[in-house]
Amino acid sequence: MEIRAAVLEEFAQPLQVTTLDLAGPKAGEVLVRLHACGVCHTDMYSASGVDPSGYAPCVLGHEGAGVVEAVGEGVTSVAPGDHVVTLFSPQCGECVNCRSGRTNICVAIREQQNQGYLPDGTARLSRDGEPIRHFMGCSTFAEATVVSEYSLAKVSKDAPLETAALFACGLSTGLGAAMYRAKVWEGSTAVVFGAGMVGLGAVAGARLQGAERIICVDLSEERLALAKHHGATDGWLAGDDIVDRILAETDGYGADFTFEATGLVGVMRQAVESARMGWGVCCVTGVAGKGETLDIVPRYLITGRTVMGASFGGVKGRDQVPELVDRYLAGDIDADAFISHRISLDDINKGFDLMHHQDGIRSVVTF
Amino acid sequence: MEIRAAVLEEFAQPLQVTTLDLAGPKAGEVLVRLHACGVCHTDMYSASGVDPSGYAPCVLGHEGAGVVEAVGEGVTSVAPGDHVVTLFSPQCGECVNCRSGRTNICVAIREQQNQGYLPDGTARLSRDGEPIRHFMGCSTFAEATVVSEYSLAKVSKDAPLETAALFACGLSTGLGAAMYRAKVWEGSTAVVFGAGMVGLGAVAGARLQGAERIICVDLSEERLALAKHHGATDGWLAGDDIVDRILAETDGYGADFTFEATGLVGVMRQAVESARMGWGVCCVTGVAGKGETLDIVPRYLITGRTVMGASFGGVKGRDQVPELVDRYLAGDIDADAFISHRISLDDINKGFDLMHHQDGIRSVVTF
Repeated sequence: MEIRAAVLEEFAQPLQVTTLDLAGPKAGEVLVRLHACGVCHTDMYSASGVDPSGYAPCVLGHEGAGVVEAVGEGVTSVAPGDHVVTLFSPQCGECVNCRSGRTNICVAIREQQNQGYLPDGTARLSRDGEPIRHFMGCSTFAEATVVSEYSLAKVSKDAPLETAALFACGLSTGLGAAMYRAKVWEGSTAVVFGAGMVGLGAVAGARLQGAERIICVDLSEERLALAKHHGATDGWLAGDDIVDRILAETDGYGADFTFEATGLVGVMRQAVESARMGWGVCCVTGVAGKGETLDIVPRYLITGRTVMGASFGGVKGRDQVPELVDRYLAGDIDADAFISHRISLDDINKGFDLMHHQDGIRSVVTF
Repeated sequence: MEIRAAVLEEFAQPLQVTTLDLAGPKAGEVLVRLHACGVCHTDMYSASGVDPSGYAPCVLGHEGAGVVEAVGEGVTSVAPGDHVVTLFSPQCGECVNCRSGRTNICVAIREQQNQGYLPDGTARLSRDGEPIRHFMGCSTFAEATVVSEYSLAKVSKDAPLETAALFACGLSTGLGAAMYRAKVWEGSTAVVFGAGMVGLGAVAGARLQGAERIICVDLSEERLALAKHHGATDGWLAGDDIVDRILAETDGYGADFTFEATGLVGVMRQAVESARMGWGVCCVTGVAGKGETLDIVPRYLITGRTVMGASFGGVKGRDQVPELVDRYLAGDIDADAFISHRISLDDINKGFDLMHHQDGIRSVVTF
């Protein structure tokens, strides 16, 4: 079939919306008609060419939601008509990692995915007979895509697909960091550094876990107001004195939980140093620049702090994304509030511009 | 009463064994007649003058064991005749940290202890009427000492006191790191960097937890042989390629648990980078040099590793040191094997020399 898709032809150049060929699903694969796709920093990062593992040409996009149109041989987890969210972080349920129950990092299709292919090592996308590579196993800046069934979470049909798409990446990453990875406990104090999509998700997740005090730190008053909407009890402007301020307001001990959602190693260090002596947990979610390190004075560890991180918030996609969408439907998460702009596929580069200017939280492409 | 004690008169000078006055126990305090005291790196570090929080004159020593001789008003946890181990890491049971159950870092008497005083802010040690400060709330390089009752674990009378003394610091730190802090699980793979007292304790602790494979890494073949005695399945010489070797022998994933017991930040980094993707736990126990940092590439965190540390191995002294001593008595820990030299108080500086030359694992002063 022919589809319209946004192609990264060359690094650091605008995406080109063009017509490609999409082959049907092979065994274990699923054809999805996309209804919405969020524009995420990771797409922009790959398009920039700064990511050393990036490649072109390919079809970007990974925060997608849509409806199953056809399934390949052996697919049992979804059927035509099902509403699905794409998972850049797949869940096969059978690899050594999935079976362990200890992590959400599935390794079944990781290698081929990282190279831009579906699990069998080939692409379904092509142009004039030349293969075009997939992105993160998703390639959802397109009217339709073919993905592994491991890369799809089946979600309630009650959720609008443009909202469901947010659960494909940033929102779940923040929610999961608080709920599944750090496991915020009732009555605790949590500090969230960064009020972007992931940070706001962590604020909401900390609230759902019953944190008593949730301090959000950001450079923007506007974003701090959003953080309060999602559950922050305090919104503080970022600054060099932020660690001292957190210590001063926690009897000198620090916060039970700190979350870093900026990708800046200096902020990660603040998150470590403002976690509580004795049991504070610092959870890093941001992707740092190449070659940068988080420099920790070991004394912070020796005196009882724990530093951890999460990919996709530790969320096991096929099991837990549907649960998170259900919590949205139950009114526990105001996911609609994260959508700041709706754009068409032809305006995809505007989505990058908006993100670059930190205008709004999330642009969603609707098809 | 008059006691003989080893006094740090001036930094970087040999300790002087001399006669001091020791006042009787005040309320909440206990007079202990010492029978044995291990010589630990922390004593040597303080004596060197490099520790910015050090002070002189004072009576060093903190790895002590002895018999209660008298108790002050209100003391109920121990009675004359009880066998006790001193705790540089006290446990009051009532402060915000002790009550939490989440940490072993008691804050009840911390401030005074760090300044060299008993909880009421004064010293029991003196010479010619001039106070001499205590060290880590213990000052056990002496025939007798007065400490807070929070600083004593009552242990079985079946344990020889010179062996019990080892549980006052290094051995418990290693055991606890594996058993209480990192919580090694059955069937796991653990790597221990450093086969000194703490590292060997971690090896034994990992064995007690049921680890299937325990790799110990050190510069000394002799110490690696000791590690095998205590439960290591593999002894590997340290080197720049050690991370690659660990990954190669763990299907490329890394070890479920890694323990750092060297105090070297470069080794800490190796411990982080050889912990398993997805769920590896790196536990730091060594004390790094002033100003040094453990530099972590955040990707190691994002892909599921956890970095933590422990003081005294996370052991809650009054509750858990007696349990560990019982496991020694049950034959689970060959603690006697750690004692490499027995020296008299007059030979205390020889204990530092032996440690400086890495001759043996532990020298114990016997009284």
